[in-house]
Amino acid sequence: MRQFFVGLDIGGTKTEVLIVNTDSSIQSQLKGNTSTTSPKEMVDGVIQTIYRALDQIEATPEDVVAIGAGIPGQVHQETGEVRLAANLGLAEYPLGSVLSSEFGAPVVLENDVRLAAVGTYDYLRQHETINHLAYMGIGTGVSVGLVLNGTLYRGAHGMAGEIGHLVIADNGVTCNCGQVGCLETVIAGPAIARQAAEAGLDSTSTMTELYELAENGNAKAQAIVERVGHFITRAIQSVIMTYDVEKIVLGGGVTSAGTALLNTIFSELALLRKQSELVRVMLPDSKIALLPGDFNAGTHGAIRMARDAVNAFNKRTF
Amino acid sequence: MRQFFVGLDIGGTKTEVLIVNTDSSIQSQLKGNTSTTSPKEMVDGVIQTIYRALDQIEATPEDVVAIGAGIPGQVHQETGEVRLAANLGLAEYPLGSVLSSEFGAPVVLENDVRLAAVGTYDYLRQHETINHLAYMGIGTGVSVGLVLNGTLYRGAHGMAGEIGHLVIADNGVTCNCGQVGCLETVIAGPAIARQAAEAGLDSTSTMTELYELAENGNAKAQAIVERVGHFITRAIQSVIMTYDVEKIVLGGGVTSAGTALLNTIFSELALLRKQSELVRVMLPDSKIALLPGDFNAGTHGAIRMARDAVNAFNKRTF
Repeated sequence: MRQFFVGLDIGGTKTEVLIVNTDSSIQSQLKGNTSTTSPKEMVDGVIQTIYRALDQIEATPEDVVAIGAGIPGQVHQETGEVRLAANLGLAEYPLGSVLSSEFGAPVVLENDVRLAAVGTYDYLRQHETINHLAYMGIGTGVSVGLVLNGTLYRGAHGMAGEIGHLVIADNGVTCNCGQVGCLETVIAGPAIARQAAEAGLDSTSTMTELYELAENGNAKAQAIVERVGHFITRAIQSVIMTYDVEKIVLGGGVTSAGTALLNTIFSELALLRKQSELVRVMLPDSKIALLPGDFNAGTHGAIRMARDAVNAFNKRTF
Repeated sequence: MRQFFVGLDIGGTKTEVLIVNTDSSIQSQLKGNTSTTSPKEMVDGVIQTIYRALDQIEATPEDVVAIGAGIPGQVHQETGEVRLAANLGLAEYPLGSVLSSEFGAPVVLENDVRLAAVGTYDYLRQHETINHLAYMGIGTGVSVGLVLNGTLYRGAHGMAGEIGHLVIADNGVTCNCGQVGCLETVIAGPAIARQAAEAGLDSTSTMTELYELAENGNAKAQAIVERVGHFITRAIQSVIMTYDVEKIVLGGGVTSAGTALLNTIFSELALLRKQSELVRVMLPDSKIALLPGDFNAGTHGAIRMARDAVNAFNKRTF
């Protein structure tokens, strides 16, 4: 019998599946659309995507040892229920048990940004010694996943790292959460799109286009890009000052602008270092990195969590 | 032979000593002045204060099992050296080994706010189940000590919780650290004194006086007290959103204003709750408390650390 671990990253538009065998070598990897018309359609779509990945390697549910699944929202980890995932249209939904009964395997459910932190941590550990890491997901929302002292940190209620709702501006825009001037109202994807639209840059449909426009000298695009860089830098600084992590890795849709985005952060840090010894000591450029574009940290983190859960279970039953 | 643990809280003006026996009952507790004219004078003064506390119970260095010591600054915990404690006039100073050779006992050195977090955690655990706690020290500086999953969290370089240098205002006052608009420039003791002086309230020499003036209707005092409450609330919110702790306890000189200070925070939170469901869920008043005025969390935390170090050592040698 073959033994496979399945890692899922269920996003608002795409679901990515990764299948590895017990020595971690990748067997199958593919993406499917995420349907959000109803919880049933959504989950059926996810199940079909998993079957497609299994079919590629002529595998069946019997070959699946465990499944790890990341969702953009909050989970009840103990019960495998989604507490709330607004972008998937799920609330108090038993995703874990639905997938578990379909594939006859245990399912570990976790917030997607937290899984990306775990996947990034494992990835970096192949090349460097690191024990404290933050992964900052900047997409539809903004939050950080944290590995502290080598262990995923969730907080008392699974809410640790909700930095998107830190208030950073006294006279800002009203956030979905009801507060005024949250970090998300400036640096999240929809907030950047809003700022571009307000500046009459409606034609820039992607982050890459906006950052190219700025690099080509468009003053309006430059103003937005600089403001976003200013507040991403402030968020990075907050994360490093509060958690004292060795590295912070950025990912999510907004970071698709790549080096152009990173350069706005490094420029801002260069200015701050001129002012402050503390920034010189605590915020070298080397602490900040982008996730490699071709690496889905979420699915890798999902597999790691599934594997850890199986190992913990085996220890318990011996 | 009697067996005592010694806990020290070495502050910029006072040094507090607590002596307990092996069943944790308090044997001796007293305060001495901290001399900061030179490192030697400072340490000699601390040593004399410890001897005074030992004399009270007719004890000698032979009775001391271990010493825990908190200092307002950064330490190299492994070597027992003070890295930097500006208010004590110490830099790269071997405080641990000096105390250790004087009393013939092991010494554990730690940042004072971190020890206060440990002491507060033990105190609260007597009455409630809690696993995640932040202690926010608001005095000459501002920082948080963190107990996460029941364990003191220090960060990769012992710098976790340095929230005093989070930038909270774009057009603020320049901080000692060189940055502009740090949290410390608004809510730390010297910053409040500066704001009072700028408003012509030079006669208010204590926090209690300033808060009394505000309660008695002085508009200038009210403006300062409200602004300080606004930014302490924002700091509390940052700590709860980032770490997801079950409780945040406030201590340090600024909190000597007591309930009057706490009321400014509760008013601010009441406003935020009207705006935001997220604040209603994550920031109930019950998560925020003041340290009891007669409880020195620092010395209690110091003793706990000393005791833990001895236990860990005993386990290693068995």
